[in-house]
Amino acid sequence: MRIGYFGEPGAYSNIAAINMHEGRDIPLQSVRSVFMELQNGNIDYGVVPVENSIEGSVNQTYDYLYKMPFYIVKEYYLRIQHCLIGSEDSSIENIKYAHSHPQALAQCSDFLFNKNIIPVNEYDTAGSALIIKKLDIAHAAIASEMAAKIYNMKILARDIENNRYNYTRFIMISKNPEKASGRVKTSIVFSTPNIPGALFNILKILNRYGINMSRIESRPVDFTPFNYIFFIDFENNNNYLQAISDMKNATVSFKEIGTYPVAIISK
Amino acid sequence: MRIGYFGEPGAYSNIAAINMHEGRDIPLQSVRSVFMELQNGNIDYGVVPVENSIEGSVNQTYDYLYKMPFYIVKEYYLRIQHCLIGSEDSSIENIKYAHSHPQALAQCSDFLFNKNIIPVNEYDTAGSALIIKKLDIAHAAIASEMAAKIYNMKILARDIENNRYNYTRFIMISKNPEKASGRVKTSIVFSTPNIPGALFNILKILNRYGINMSRIESRPVDFTPFNYIFFIDFENNNNYLQAISDMKNATVSFKEIGTYPVAIISK
Repeated sequence: MRIGYFGEPGAYSNIAAINMHEGRDIPLQSVRSVFMELQNGNIDYGVVPVENSIEGSVNQTYDYLYKMPFYIVKEYYLRIQHCLIGSEDSSIENIKYAHSHPQALAQCSDFLFNKNIIPVNEYDTAGSALIIKKLDIAHAAIASEMAAKIYNMKILARDIENNRYNYTRFIMISKNPEKASGRVKTSIVFSTPNIPGALFNILKILNRYGINMSRIESRPVDFTPFNYIFFIDFENNNNYLQAISDMKNATVSFKEIGTYPVAIISK
Repeated sequence: MRIGYFGEPGAYSNIAAINMHEGRDIPLQSVRSVFMELQNGNIDYGVVPVENSIEGSVNQTYDYLYKMPFYIVKEYYLRIQHCLIGSEDSSIENIKYAHSHPQALAQCSDFLFNKNIIPVNEYDTAGSALIIKKLDIAHAAIASEMAAKIYNMKILARDIENNRYNYTRFIMISKNPEKASGRVKTSIVFSTPNIPGALFNILKILNRYGINMSRIESRPVDFTPFNYIFFIDFENNNNYLQAISDMKNATVSFKEIGTYPVAIISK
């Protein structure tokens, strides 16, 4: 199995991909390329982030889930633990600059402020480890422990994030839906008629069948300013097929984007 | 009146600020600084983007609306019309590079591709006009017509965005709520008890009082992974005070963040 993920080797998506499925992991440059490589048949599964407990939703992932005919087959929660990484002969006292993705730098702002280290924006966490290999010992990167191992670098500090409740939810996508059993979730996306109370009517259907919604997310629709599509995740019960049938009748467009096992957030 | 906006002079927020209130417009470096300067009393009003019809919500704005004790007093929809801007002696045939904010570059990707122009990321649209002033005639910026006028530069092409349905909704914020009459909207933010159907119970209240919701947005809450707060905009009717009172009883935390006139999207 070929599993494409967004980022360089050692990126947090790489760690998620390893935990989600065995196979050959293939680094890809963007969320877009994961969807494109799946479409072109160059990978069997794709792994992309869908939301982070601090930053919120990954809008790009939602937009491609809406536009492309793929299915979610698995979800996974990864706790994001940032390390300060330097070259073999560096030590934390020498570090003047920390390179990383802007979000990772923001998530470690307290540590950087206290140590008087200047943040430098790069396109990727693991990628910045590669960049600082070519620089002098005043430069460090912020990335995962795995990135330090892969690039044979030294961990100067661990768990340097401001907020330890920092989790990213990843999804695995496929061209085909897969069967799931036990506690399972379904993700749907739909647009409503442009009338007052239209969204409420959908939620009323879920409520009528005793179905618990775990997530609602709205995204704008191209070419119709400030109309929205809605993404909902809910936990299946015995009535869920009937609920889907009722919702199809109450929406303008409706798509199931996968039924998959409920993942647990580990501490 | 001192009105702080996010961006350099000529930024789209500057255009919105001029259309929203008379006064002295003060450019600020970030959405964060607009909120901070309002808190410190250095400005009387702040103007920040809250959502774009293509990109979706501005998460930072929502987070500060939740955390800080300010009120929305006005909303405004601005159509985003991008220009390619060069120095006086440049012409479109010479342009090899276009500098701008990554979102503006993405919104003009068709034009850039067709003209074989390479995009270069900068921190701001109007700011990139200043940057290319120092570069040779192969460099242009993507920014507003107003930016071209302010910096005395040449407009090489107009309306170069892929999608003309490109609007940004701006809000004006203040330390104090203001009275509004006619067709008015109210914005609220709340968290629900962690029980199935909790959000549904809130929407049920709006529905019971015949109140039409125009927007719902969820954002994660710090320190409790994958719990959410909800932002709702609704149009007021005669029952809205009763609805607010009922919603306060059905939520864990509840905050009104302003009642203000409904703005119209001009074509």
